[in-house]
Amino acid sequence: MNHNRSFIYMDNAATTWPKPPSVIEAMERCMLESAANPGRGSHTMAVKASRVLFETRKRLSKLFHIANPNDIAFTLNTTHALNLAIQGLLKPGDHVIATSLEHNSTRRPLEALKRTIGIEVTYITTDAKGVLDLKQVEDAINERTKLVTAVHSSNLLGTILPVAELGEIARRRRIRLLIDAAQTAGVLPIDVTAMGIDLLAFPGHKGLLGPQGTGGLYINPEIELEPLLFGGTGSKSEEIGQPKIRPDRYEAGTQNTVGLAGLAEGVRFVLNETVETIHAKEKALTYELMEGLQQIPGLSILGPDVGQERTAIVSFLLEGVDPSEIAFLLDQQFGIAVRSGFHCTPLGHQTAGSYETGAVRLSPGYFTEKSEIESVIEAVKEINVTLTARA
Amino acid sequence: MNHNRSFIYMDNAATTWPKPPSVIEAMERCMLESAANPGRGSHTMAVKASRVLFETRKRLSKLFHIANPNDIAFTLNTTHALNLAIQGLLKPGDHVIATSLEHNSTRRPLEALKRTIGIEVTYITTDAKGVLDLKQVEDAINERTKLVTAVHSSNLLGTILPVAELGEIARRRRIRLLIDAAQTAGVLPIDVTAMGIDLLAFPGHKGLLGPQGTGGLYINPEIELEPLLFGGTGSKSEEIGQPKIRPDRYEAGTQNTVGLAGLAEGVRFVLNETVETIHAKEKALTYELMEGLQQIPGLSILGPDVGQERTAIVSFLLEGVDPSEIAFLLDQQFGIAVRSGFHCTPLGHQTAGSYETGAVRLSPGYFTEKSEIESVIEAVKEINVTLTARA
Repeated sequence: MNHNRSFIYMDNAATTWPKPPSVIEAMERCMLESAANPGRGSHTMAVKASRVLFETRKRLSKLFHIANPNDIAFTLNTTHALNLAIQGLLKPGDHVIATSLEHNSTRRPLEALKRTIGIEVTYITTDAKGVLDLKQVEDAINERTKLVTAVHSSNLLGTILPVAELGEIARRRRIRLLIDAAQTAGVLPIDVTAMGIDLLAFPGHKGLLGPQGTGGLYINPEIELEPLLFGGTGSKSEEIGQPKIRPDRYEAGTQNTVGLAGLAEGVRFVLNETVETIHAKEKALTYELMEGLQQIPGLSILGPDVGQERTAIVSFLLEGVDPSEIAFLLDQQFGIAVRSGFHCTPLGHQTAGSYETGAVRLSPGYFTEKSEIESVIEAVKEINVTLTARA
Repeated sequence: MNHNRSFIYMDNAATTWPKPPSVIEAMERCMLESAANPGRGSHTMAVKASRVLFETRKRLSKLFHIANPNDIAFTLNTTHALNLAIQGLLKPGDHVIATSLEHNSTRRPLEALKRTIGIEVTYITTDAKGVLDLKQVEDAINERTKLVTAVHSSNLLGTILPVAELGEIARRRRIRLLIDAAQTAGVLPIDVTAMGIDLLAFPGHKGLLGPQGTGGLYINPEIELEPLLFGGTGSKSEEIGQPKIRPDRYEAGTQNTVGLAGLAEGVRFVLNETVETIHAKEKALTYELMEGLQQIPGLSILGPDVGQERTAIVSFLLEGVDPSEIAFLLDQQFGIAVRSGFHCTPLGHQTAGSYETGAVRLSPGYFTEKSEIESVIEAVKEINVTLTARA
């Protein structure tokens, strides 16, 4: 089993690649041995499948410091988790505070609810580097404010938002806190209790190193969400409504057993390496990348400076050049996979001042090699020379 | 790569097992080579991932006679697809006609909408063997009827409902038809155009032989559903609302690329074998199973008789014995995996007269061997003798 390492993968913010071999092995083993329908039968293989789900929940609970694994509901992806949280919690007339760094996976469900049931949303604009002013958050709270929602780290800028401080405000003001951990689960320490996170939406296929098709939502046991999907759960089949019992209440239909078997191994890998080690390595690679790129005339990097805390996301603009052209050349001439465009966060681009152009985003990962960082810097340099000569 | 065939798997109605080896190989290849984020970048690997999704859509379209592959939206499972159809279509005051054979994945979203937005639902009760009286359906239609929804084949009785006839009624009365193909996709011929199906919800992990975590909904291009999940699509990132373009409109967030790579191979297998061959083999195995079981005193089989059309589902009761005890003994003493209980269809059990007890369900599949059917019959005989002696 070999990963195709003939190119350089710099798109880990979209999905991490490669995965630990144990993830792929676990998926194959699951398909061969235990991919019966979890919770739908009591035969040996169905019990094995149920155990896969339970083990995954248990490891995630350890990572996020969740007391009861059944307070995690599995979802198709982070978007599904955010929709369950937002659509399940909010009622007509509720007020929500969000930030200008939110991904469309938060902004679009909020905007949909504005239109369909009538909620109100205040977006707090951060500064151009993504720094959030907590006083503005506190000042925006009114008697109808039910939820503060924030992305843990901007998928455009790499800026890390002050989650624990938001949790403190939310707790003190008796408001719920929803965190979008798309860029941070598995990469930054997350402790739902210590940080006061009521709802934590996370992907399985990014920092947790599992496969696509997995993700989940932690739901504080005090919170009763309206389910998003209604259907069979294998429990209390005779009830007309969705059963109250967790996680069944929020997991209708057959779950992605094979994907979750892979995720369990991804989380095991993260727990073994520790998020601290992972973040430290990613940060070192990121700073090196930034330092190299900064030497290039006309190139500007979005988000925090070298030395400041950030996740492994380096978005940049090259004066007078269309980001999609850079991405195209990196891919076709240098075999470097990056992403250009809006990254599903138009608000973020407005905040950073890159709304007109979009940006090129480089996102190294834990498996990125130092030599790859050097190759990327050289490639961008070369592209700059070529395009400058052309102009 | 070897499947563990040391036991007999008779739970294919919950999820098929084993899968064709090509399904597992495609998943491994995808994880190693092309599991980037589809539609989220233009680099080579992201394009490969997009192609996986497109190829899967194309093969499903061939199987179901869908003109435009983009009218298929991928979902986590059939339940997700049914919720998208039901929650996305119905408005306050709408009337829906369903049958007494519906799975909770249809019934529960309908009941939720009765409670939340106020719709009306008429359940047409079939006879005890699952035969639907089309005249009753037609008589139940009123000026507010927007949808007829029916399970294609009962997951308890194996009865096949007259979909084409329902399609004819729906078309003539200008009502939409939703079909739950959980038990029939890949096993019975389905032609959405010829049969007048407006919305087709299907699982990837049953008759289509793909992995869990996959499924989808075909949406007639004339129908505009409200999305269930709002979020990033990789397209039209700057729009505040969900883009109109299909399939993006109904596929927010990262899709299950690896699962869909497996599903593409499952569908290819089905297309190569043909549904006719698959159904014929499954029917022969089912009749043989029924004929053997019928020799056992006190045993009664639910649903259509031998010789009548049905899917490969054989639910039975043994007089005076708790079905869960039979399932337990089959598993523990004979290594035979079956399911007992309510199978998420309490209405179906009321219809069949098995609501007090539940039933034991045996569901052979395309990979079931004749010798396994014989072993199952012998095992049930033996259990019957033991339990009768005890009584």
